[in-house]
Amino acid sequence: MREIVVFSGSAHRELAREICDRLGVPLSPVDIVRFSNDCLQTQLQANCRQRDVYLIQPLVPPTQEHLMELLLMIDAARGASAASITAVVPHYAYARSDKKDASRISLGGRLVADLLSTAGVDRVITMTLHAPQVHGFFSVPVDQLTALGVLADHFLDQDLTDAVVVSPDLGNAKVATQFARLLGLPVAAGSKQRLADDRVVIDSIVGEVSGKRAIVLDDEIATGGSIVELLDKLAEAGCERADVACTHGLFVGKAVERLRDHPRIGEVISTDTVPPPGDWPELRVLSVASLFAEAINRVHAGESISSLFDGVDPTLGPPQPKLFD
Amino acid sequence: MREIVVFSGSAHRELAREICDRLGVPLSPVDIVRFSNDCLQTQLQANCRQRDVYLIQPLVPPTQEHLMELLLMIDAARGASAASITAVVPHYAYARSDKKDASRISLGGRLVADLLSTAGVDRVITMTLHAPQVHGFFSVPVDQLTALGVLADHFLDQDLTDAVVVSPDLGNAKVATQFARLLGLPVAAGSKQRLADDRVVIDSIVGEVSGKRAIVLDDEIATGGSIVELLDKLAEAGCERADVACTHGLFVGKAVERLRDHPRIGEVISTDTVPPPGDWPELRVLSVASLFAEAINRVHAGESISSLFDGVDPTLGPPQPKLFD
Amino acid sequence: MREIVVFSGSAHRELAREICDRLGVPLSPVDIVRFSNDCLQTQLQANCRQRDVYLIQPLVPPTQEHLMELLLMIDAARGASAASITAVVPHYAYARSDKKDASRISLGGRLVADLLSTAGVDRVITMTLHAPQVHGFFSVPVDQLTALGVLADHFLDQDLTDAVVVSPDLGNAKVATQFARLLGLPVAAGSKQRLADDRVVIDSIVGEVSGKRAIVLDDEIATGGSIVELLDKLAEAGCERADVACTHGLFVGKAVERLRDHPRIGEVISTDTVPPPGDWPELRVLSVASLFAEAINRVHAGESISSLFDGVDPTLGPPQPKLFD
Amino acid sequence: MREIVVFSGSAHRELAREICDRLGVPLSPVDIVRFSNDCLQTQLQANCRQRDVYLIQPLVPPTQEHLMELLLMIDAARGASAASITAVVPHYAYARSDKKDASRISLGGRLVADLLSTAGVDRVITMTLHAPQVHGFFSVPVDQLTALGVLADHFLDQDLTDAVVVSPDLGNAKVATQFARLLGLPVAAGSKQRLADDRVVIDSIVGEVSGKRAIVLDDEIATGGSIVELLDKLAEAGCERADVACTHGLFVGKAVERLRDHPRIGEVISTDTVPPPGDWPELRVLSVASLFAEAINRVHAGESISSLFDGVDPTLGPPQPKLFD
Amino acid sequence: MREIVVFSGSAHRELAREICDRLGVPLSPVDIVRFSNDCLQTQLQANCRQRDVYLIQPLVPPTQEHLMELLLMIDAARGASAASITAVVPHYAYARSDKKDASRISLGGRLVADLLSTAGVDRVITMTLHAPQVHGFFSVPVDQLTALGVLADHFLDQDLTDAVVVSPDLGNAKVATQFARLLGLPVAAGSKQRLADDRVVIDSIVGEVSGKRAIVLDDEIATGGSIVELLDKLAEAGCERADVACTHGLFVGKAVERLRDHPRIGEVISTDTVPPPGDWPELRVLSVASLFAEAINRVHAGESISSLFDGVDPTLGPPQPKLFD
Amino acid sequence: MREIVVFSGSAHRELAREICDRLGVPLSPVDIVRFSNDCLQTQLQANCRQRDVYLIQPLVPPTQEHLMELLLMIDAARGASAASITAVVPHYAYARSDKKDASRISLGGRLVADLLSTAGVDRVITMTLHAPQVHGFFSVPVDQLTALGVLADHFLDQDLTDAVVVSPDLGNAKVATQFARLLGLPVAAGSKQRLADDRVVIDSIVGEVSGKRAIVLDDEIATGGSIVELLDKLAEAGCERADVACTHGLFVGKAVERLRDHPRIGEVISTDTVPPPGDWPELRVLSVASLFAEAINRVHAGESISSLFDGVDPTLGPPQPKLFD
Repeated sequence: MREIVVFSGSAHRELAREICDRLGVPLSPVDIVRFSNDCLQTQLQANCRQRDVYLIQPLVPPTQEHLMELLLMIDAARGASAASITAVVPHYAYARSDKKDASRISLGGRLVADLLSTAGVDRVITMTLHAPQVHGFFSVPVDQLTALGVLADHFLDQDLTDAVVVSPDLGNAKVATQFARLLGLPVAAGSKQRLADDRVVIDSIVGEVSGKRAIVLDDEIATGGSIVELLDKLAEAGCERADVACTHGLFVGKAVERLRDHPRIGEVISTDTVPPPGDWPELRVLSVASLFAEAINRVHAGESISSLFDGVDPTLGPPQPKLFD
Repeated sequence: MREIVVFSGSAHRELAREICDRLGVPLSPVDIVRFSNDCLQTQLQANCRQRDVYLIQPLVPPTQEHLMELLLMIDAARGASAASITAVVPHYAYARSDKKDASRISLGGRLVADLLSTAGVDRVITMTLHAPQVHGFFSVPVDQLTALGVLADHFLDQDLTDAVVVSPDLGNAKVATQFARLLGLPVAAGSKQRLADDRVVIDSIVGEVSGKRAIVLDDEIATGGSIVELLDKLAEAGCERADVACTHGLFVGKAVERLRDHPRIGEVISTDTVPPPGDWPELRVLSVASLFAEAINRVHAGESISSLFDGVDPTLGPPQPKLFD
Repeated sequence: MREIVVFSGSAHRELAREICDRLGVPLSPVDIVRFSNDCLQTQLQANCRQRDVYLIQPLVPPTQEHLMELLLMIDAARGASAASITAVVPHYAYARSDKKDASRISLGGRLVADLLSTAGVDRVITMTLHAPQVHGFFSVPVDQLTALGVLADHFLDQDLTDAVVVSPDLGNAKVATQFARLLGLPVAAGSKQRLADDRVVIDSIVGEVSGKRAIVLDDEIATGGSIVELLDKLAEAGCERADVACTHGLFVGKAVERLRDHPRIGEVISTDTVPPPGDWPELRVLSVASLFAEAINRVHAGESISSLFDGVDPTLGPPQPKLFD
Repeated sequence: MREIVVFSGSAHRELAREICDRLGVPLSPVDIVRFSNDCLQTQLQANCRQRDVYLIQPLVPPTQEHLMELLLMIDAARGASAASITAVVPHYAYARSDKKDASRISLGGRLVADLLSTAGVDRVITMTLHAPQVHGFFSVPVDQLTALGVLADHFLDQDLTDAVVVSPDLGNAKVATQFARLLGLPVAAGSKQRLADDRVVIDSIVGEVSGKRAIVLDDEIATGGSIVELLDKLAEAGCERADVACTHGLFVGKAVERLRDHPRIGEVISTDTVPPPGDWPELRVLSVASLFAEAINRVHAGESISSLFDGVDPTLGPPQPKLFD
Repeated sequence: MREIVVFSGSAHRELAREICDRLGVPLSPVDIVRFSNDCLQTQLQANCRQRDVYLIQPLVPPTQEHLMELLLMIDAARGASAASITAVVPHYAYARSDKKDASRISLGGRLVADLLSTAGVDRVITMTLHAPQVHGFFSVPVDQLTALGVLADHFLDQDLTDAVVVSPDLGNAKVATQFARLLGLPVAAGSKQRLADDRVVIDSIVGEVSGKRAIVLDDEIATGGSIVELLDKLAEAGCERADVACTHGLFVGKAVERLRDHPRIGEVISTDTVPPPGDWPELRVLSVASLFAEAINRVHAGESISSLFDGVDPTLGPPQPKLFD
Repeated sequence: MREIVVFSGSAHRELAREICDRLGVPLSPVDIVRFSNDCLQTQLQANCRQRDVYLIQPLVPPTQEHLMELLLMIDAARGASAASITAVVPHYAYARSDKKDASRISLGGRLVADLLSTAGVDRVITMTLHAPQVHGFFSVPVDQLTALGVLADHFLDQDLTDAVVVSPDLGNAKVATQFARLLGLPVAAGSKQRLADDRVVIDSIVGEVSGKRAIVLDDEIATGGSIVELLDKLAEAGCERADVACTHGLFVGKAVERLRDHPRIGEVISTDTVPPPGDWPELRVLSVASLFAEAINRVHAGESISSLFDGVDPTLGPPQPKLFD
């Protein structure tokens, strides 16, 4: 079996180190140079020839810098005769640009997928894409992992009496429903209303939440604005306390300020697909390094990744009955 | 300006003829041969050289036959030195296969987009894709039209007192909201619940419908099963009468039987993106031939298509305010 | 060495099972779903990761359905991270569309080869293409097998006194000549005449057939029309009895009716590259499953396939002297 | 309409000049440099920007030099922003390498077609490919012209009493049959026999030739060996005199010697797709410059090329009845 | 003739406006949105359909942001059915990454050229690439302009008695020689010495400079470090005063500080391919907007661009004699 | 580990045999046929299936013939299911065509790199490209070897007192500087002056050479013209004796005549990347066969190639400090 070589860009070296620890392989060094004209250059400092190269880089701010680092590392690995190149992108931020919802607009989710192919990537491992269709933007195989099991394990250690899982958006409540099932809880959701073309608000809560403890689940929290809005609506509906869980905890802009000391928030739980904010010690960060390490192991050994999520995510589990029409 | 040549496969010649009538160009003949080994061959019977070729073919049953006809016509046009080849696919049925919701599953929506590119298509004109992300599956420019204005015009001639627009799926209610705004009506929606992995049911109606007349809007009706289910829930919620409108009225399987004589359905309205069923004279079919003809005209003249939908679909209208986060 | 995984579409599961038996590997299940809008979806129900995937599917009627199944299976295997994907297409029916013999005509033989590449195929194994040039339509390696040895073995068990091999078309008599050499027999052929642009008839027999027993050899029999015409000409030339052998026995339309009880036909022999007709128990079907199994074995083991046909087909044998000019 | 610019490599400048004369455009100069390391460089000495560029170069000996010149001219035209690039290759010599008739053999006919695409060609205009399937080797549109009408006109001026058209190879007699029809003559053909794997001989003449004057038609004459062999067989069959006509008169090796003074040959007629041999004044060379000029004109004006051959070649004429099975 | 539409990213709107002024077309607006997760999105706010789109964006710091803006604008223009897309990149900064001068290093100059192609660019217009070979990294046509004439005109208005053109690097002195010829001056150059692997210094001046006024010419000035080093060596050689001219005046890091008040520098002249630094009013910036406008005009009109530089740059002029070997 | 199979075209079989000797594998035979129409065909006469195929062919005169042989061998290997195909091109002659130094000129260095990719090459191993940027013309991985160590070893056996390394072109003196460091010698260089557009002459020698013995180092010697010119300048500078060393000793035209008996030349040393001239027994040819064999071994074993040149070429050695600006 060919050897594994793992490199990390500058986006999230801590996660890369943890993945390597669990894999039992060293994190090989990369020299990233910024020239005086602001161009980047990367040099992989370990032999790639005939090896399976894994490049770990979530697309977190500064996103363009990290994307270019990733593209240059892929290019360097290809030029260095890697046997295969896998981009491990725990957070694929450009998934948000997934539709032409205005005239003559760019479609970043597809474009970045194509750029990765051009640079020479052979496979992508990622976690929880914003929309499931984004998978289809890639022309290389994609392994999409889920943190649902990790997040559920956290709550299963607690007393969940009177708890309810709440999705901020009823339209995307499918994942919340799976999560509720893992916890044995009911599910509720915010119902979004489009006030005008330019403004979406949560105008009601669907499901019973009065007097309960909410466990709010979202895929990505950026500024935290819609979480706060949801908490207000939950309060109106008689739910005074909530924990908040997400996969991709970006917490940019005023997010930390908004959420850290919010009077109705108990715990905030995120994973380490992106680097946690430095000024929020109470944030509970669950590591997905083991999941990524195990996925890399299975890719390497030719074992099924879907079975890694048996009982967690039915779309990754054994063949499903048909839901169509 | 180059000449337009229009051909039609065997999927929906009636629509092709109407588009040509409105364009004022003849529908050029195609010879489609089925060999004794069941292989197909197409021959375009008009000069394509240096011309802009439009091939009209919705992907309706028998879907594989019609898809292959389309691919072969594109291949023939390319070999015949067409200046550009536009596939006019009023119903892109494979848009339904838009996500990897099970392991090792095919992704037909992306594959068929790639097959069309391989055959040599330069552009696609279609109507109302099942999910907006499917746009990103194509590597050629796509013009996506909407029948919302045509459907709205139909109802605006009526007395809409006490009417409410109802979407079968709250998760996809965005289009219904636009439709309601065009009609000056409120909107309601069915809330789908996943009973088990293999079954989704509508378990409640979100919004006020009691005593009202529902105008149910869906993008595609195939067997009609979920429409009937929605009507039952509407009845439980006190709404005894509904009209049903959709863009793509496939009406396969038991659909005609289910919907034609349903006691609580007033009118069923569809468009002619797909050929209407032969045994349902009461079905109200609104033609979108003018929309497609106008789109072809604008593509040809280099005029904006989005302005064709000013006031109808904001995603096709002038630049939009930002909805993100 | 990597593992082999074999799947079959719905075109010819019996052949796939026999190939797997000979390979000593299980035929892995595929779930093929037809949605209510007639679109197909395939799900490969065995792990493909890092494995060499073989997809067995001859292009037999309904040809478009089977082609689309094959494309979707290839797409699924690619998305499932197969190490390599080989399409085993025992009968490549679109090889018949191999030339632009009219203006603005599609070239299905090349188009379908390109579609397979787009879906992600890495190699094709097939048998007896209609014209040898079709090999050049593919951009991936093609292993073309021949059933000539299998067919010859059948006759070598018989008394071949006074027998003669007859090709229906002198223009394609090269294979018949090889066959005759294997049997130690002389060869004759029908000489086709183009009466008008739209009609080709056999107008004479080249070679001595009077009083002999003919062994007619063709690559593909579809409706059987030209075989019957040949038999009439043979009768005129004094040859009253013929056996008929072919590689691809489609026997569509009136073929069974025409050939089964034809007074001058002794035996009809075909192979199982395509499923035999159900209503013709006397048809002698020789299996090529072993040949395909052995070819797969050799591809997998990196052994020569051409040596599999030593003494049978010189084009697959050791380096040839030059025939050019 | 865009302007036409025509360049010629060094293969056949005389033909290029004649085509330009008929087009009424100048033949623009090309500077072809051979460096001291034997590498070639081409410089197009007229503005190509936004123009339709035509590069005239038959693949005649030294074939590799002329092929490389053509590839470099295409590359230069692409870099110089040509609007479109058409390779006019009156003789596509690599069409002879059209099948894998031995193991691990190159397939030059397909490879060269791909090389032309890589260099940047948009279209190919050629004449009489060795096998019709070679058309399918190209991924760009190909316009295949025929000299059949030009050759027929030559004979129609003569007394054709007792003449018969003879094809050297009955297997390729389709074109000879068309030719005979144009002349109102019967057709005969040599029947080739494979003596051993390494040797093909003409062993008989099919059709009535005794006492007649033969008009032998072949697509390409290289060394003239098989023509001489055919003449011997015709003599055995009682036909003592023959004229010989071909499209591509390469006349290499001993061809001139063999054919010029052959006692049974009347006239030898070729076209100027390739430069005629210098030492054969009696060779009758018919120019196809007008055909190529007219084809270029029609490509440029977007007119049908097939109608240029109405009544000559049915495959280029109006839609054909079906010949399949 | 098709219409021109011009857009600008945020890298250098001033230059874009000036180019548009000279073209007499408006600079069409672009909406560039930065999402809260730092992803970018661009929306072109003018109709692109059937138009020739020009996107003006030099790759100046922050380089990755500007590169991604450019890629997204190209993507948007392609999706909006532009007839052609030209990236006008006055400074292609990644040209500096042009060789593999260490193991496993990225090759940014080629990678970025490929990324532009993937996004959909059809042509690139740029100015003075760092090495002429970088032209060959692009697979689309590139028009490379030169500011040599603009810079020369500036000096031709002055008294040039006793002046000498000095190139910092004798190895790249070819352009300085052309410049000197335009000014009718002699040329000198710094001779670089590699002290160790990690350090290159100018160790001598080749040519006569003592008592003269130097006109130093470089293609790009970033931090100004090597210019200062050259001035020291010139002083040692008896040349006490120098003017400094360059095409791409980035002036990053300490450049302004180093050069603005340098005692031996007279004038510093740059062009506006990149935005000038804000804190250096004495910097003399010559506009190349007219050159780019004229190049766009000629591309559009199909006129020669090389003739724009007649008498300036022989590589852009009429056909050259051969310099090889 | 997969097996290695090595083939050689006709360019330099002797080198191929020596490489195979050192590898301990046989040189497998290739049948190269030239048809009567001058087209080439290659047949690889050893099993390539699942094997790593190496094709050895420097691009030496007749260059076009050898290039086409190489392309056809690649094509044959791909069709024969090689696991990987490496072109070993010890002298990549088209590297000289590396820039657009005149309008509408071909860029052979890039084109030929693209042609090799089209034919199906997976990797290229070469030695000393004319310009380092040419590496970036390839889209497949390139391993560039250097003969510097081999050449240095030759001189290190000699008494080098008073010797100096001389580069003919100061602009390309970087390699000579490395060479001098290996020998512990100073370096000098010819300074080229452009007299007119069409003529470059060496007008002076930079560095101290008077009374010394020169060791002239060049990458390629074709006609030897500039070497003779350099020797004249060295004589003017007081250097009366020189040895001449180069990597690619083409020695075409009058080169042997010029150099063999030149009164001031001591020894001429070349390597065997190209076949040595037959009429020059005194030429000292150092073999690089071991280097190529070792490179193939390391590619095959997945070992670093750069470490093969530790201490020789810093660009192939361990990570370098930054030289930029």
